[in-house]
Amino acid sequence: MEAIARGLEGVVVTETRLSHVDGERGELLIGGFPVEELAPHATFEEVLYLLWYGRLPDESERAALHRELAAQRALPVTCRALLRDAARHGSEPMDSLRMGVATLSLADPCPGDTSHAAQVHRAVGLVARFATLVAAHWRRIHNLEPVPPRADLGHVANYLYMLNGEEPAPAVVRALETYFNTVVDHGMNASTFTARVIASTESDMVSALVGAVGALKGPRHGGAPGPALDMVFEIRERAARSGRPLVEEADKRVREIVAGGGRLMGFGHRVYKVRDPRAEVLGAAAVRLFDGDADVALYNDALVVEDTVLHVLHELKPGRRIETNVEFYTALLLHGVGLDTALFTPTFAAARAGGWSAHVLEQFEENRLIRPASVYVGEHRHWMPGPERVAM
Amino acid sequence: MEAIARGLEGVVVTETRLSHVDGERGELLIGGFPVEELAPHATFEEVLYLLWYGRLPDESERAALHRELAAQRALPVTCRALLRDAARHGSEPMDSLRMGVATLSLADPCPGDTSHAAQVHRAVGLVARFATLVAAHWRRIHNLEPVPPRADLGHVANYLYMLNGEEPAPAVVRALETYFNTVVDHGMNASTFTARVIASTESDMVSALVGAVGALKGPRHGGAPGPALDMVFEIRERAARSGRPLVEEADKRVREIVAGGGRLMGFGHRVYKVRDPRAEVLGAAAVRLFDGDADVALYNDALVVEDTVLHVLHELKPGRRIETNVEFYTALLLHGVGLDTALFTPTFAAARAGGWSAHVLEQFEENRLIRPASVYVGEHRHWMPGPERVAM
Repeated sequence: MEAIARGLEGVVVTETRLSHVDGERGELLIGGFPVEELAPHATFEEVLYLLWYGRLPDESERAALHRELAAQRALPVTCRALLRDAARHGSEPMDSLRMGVATLSLADPCPGDTSHAAQVHRAVGLVARFATLVAAHWRRIHNLEPVPPRADLGHVANYLYMLNGEEPAPAVVRALETYFNTVVDHGMNASTFTARVIASTESDMVSALVGAVGALKGPRHGGAPGPALDMVFEIRERAARSGRPLVEEADKRVREIVAGGGRLMGFGHRVYKVRDPRAEVLGAAAVRLFDGDADVALYNDALVVEDTVLHVLHELKPGRRIETNVEFYTALLLHGVGLDTALFTPTFAAARAGGWSAHVLEQFEENRLIRPASVYVGEHRHWMPGPERVAM
Repeated sequence: MEAIARGLEGVVVTETRLSHVDGERGELLIGGFPVEELAPHATFEEVLYLLWYGRLPDESERAALHRELAAQRALPVTCRALLRDAARHGSEPMDSLRMGVATLSLADPCPGDTSHAAQVHRAVGLVARFATLVAAHWRRIHNLEPVPPRADLGHVANYLYMLNGEEPAPAVVRALETYFNTVVDHGMNASTFTARVIASTESDMVSALVGAVGALKGPRHGGAPGPALDMVFEIRERAARSGRPLVEEADKRVREIVAGGGRLMGFGHRVYKVRDPRAEVLGAAAVRLFDGDADVALYNDALVVEDTVLHVLHELKPGRRIETNVEFYTALLLHGVGLDTALFTPTFAAARAGGWSAHVLEQFEENRLIRPASVYVGEHRHWMPGPERVAM
């Protein structure tokens, strides 16, 4: 009997120069930089350049990439009509994103050209349009006309502009840009792996990224940043109703969830055994964003809940190392930026499209078809022609 | 340094009861049956039932599945409009199939229900609509109105009816049905694996099958059944022009291709080291189809070319075991059925959707997130704030 590498945990499928996840030490490198050095300082354009070209751009290269992204933001007419129809039928944001991305071969800037330069050009167009797709569908399901992109704004600022129809404050842009940079790539996660498997057949970048969107949609992967904050809101409400201190309500609720065998959203990660370095970066960004803002109370309350969860888990499951994961601070930061919970996963996808496209480029460069094996555990049968089967 | 399982060749990712590929012995089981026993005799509905339910249906179960498939053949209005637009823009069949499948969440028969029964119901609807999508787009790019499905016809007969607008002859249906059954599933190939990776995040069946379509599109996977027959046509033409015997022209051309380092399409397979059992089944189906038909000459010429290729390869590469693969006889059979080369890969997808959906059901049943690892081989850098970066 062959050993089954179920889930492929620990099976190394490829080398990469894009990111490095050290789950034991809680370290994450993106394009060679520790995430905590890169994410709060770089623009998203710089990070995209870093992933696609292997180094940071100089000022003129950065400006050129800004222009290229801005030039490819518009959606094909067919795609706009599709989003309108899908919204009318109440389609969920991730379903609409999948549909929209699937049509982007209609906007291919260089059909049939499989040179490296053409593939990079495609990556630019896809990342540019992910943001437009999410924003356009969001406006449509709220009975608002989509806001046309503004070429003078950076990628992240323009995303917020297309969502809200007004130019965002610099502090808000910086906070969301830090989020985009923090989650742009993360080793061989399920959606990135999906993109590489599809690319390994020498299929196209649109197909690879559509597959990745489908994988990210799953609650076991990208689909759960909302519930992490929901618990904070729920505990706040209980405290408001009961008049008891937040920490007391938090302790009670967390014990209830653990006793009921429920999952504490926002805590624990299959890869990180210590604190997720992204939680650190996003937590710091949230402090800066909330500082002086009315929502600083939410931030403080979230810290109380986090502290209580870790405390209770440490007491109830002493052997386990469970830490706050990226979802908890993602929820806090994106809430602070003004995004609705329903936008969390599509926004994650808009950022991760940068990493997916870079992985597809890397896979194309030194390709080998990804085709694992399976073990047959079914029946052994023989065909018995029955009268109704012989008849045809 | 960790060992890298590049391409995951030989890495067993899962158990399956759906199909068994023994590449050393040239054996393929589908739902427990040797492909050569099942494929020429069963209806496609029976094979779908076998994969989804783990056994063959009795007559009333078969009839019920026929009715369920027939009832879910229509496309959502949004999807029909999308196909019309895509065809107007000259979209390729596999791109349009990807777009069309991506919208099928709009036709979800039981939104939000993740029970096994609901997932099977979804599988029925998706397989039903794959055929409608391919046929509708095919008619559109030829400036013809799509032909509405006919509920009285079986899945494969209805597919031909929707393509051509006339009821197909029973012998043609049997030939194409044998093809559908033969290629419906084939172990852990790249597209099936893609579907399982996406399903492993607990995403939905539409997302999983869209990813699989994208993988199948790649020329390293499903994208090459056309060129196998093109070589036969080319050699026929050369013989007609030169007046020399076909076998002579074949010998000359094959040596040219090998000397030029070209790939002989239709020969060799990564998994099968002996003759692909599917080539056997499809070859036999082609004989039956061509028997008494004008195109029997093409069949005979194809045999001459096949024989020459194997003969020349045996002489030039004596150590290598290279056999005719499924693509060669697929091309011959689908040509005989009257399908244009451009329809080969979409037709493959329409058949394989049966296997993909069954694998998604199997993955959902005993799920574990598929998340491999990668090794970082990039730089180690530190952020140096430049004046223009500090500025923002």
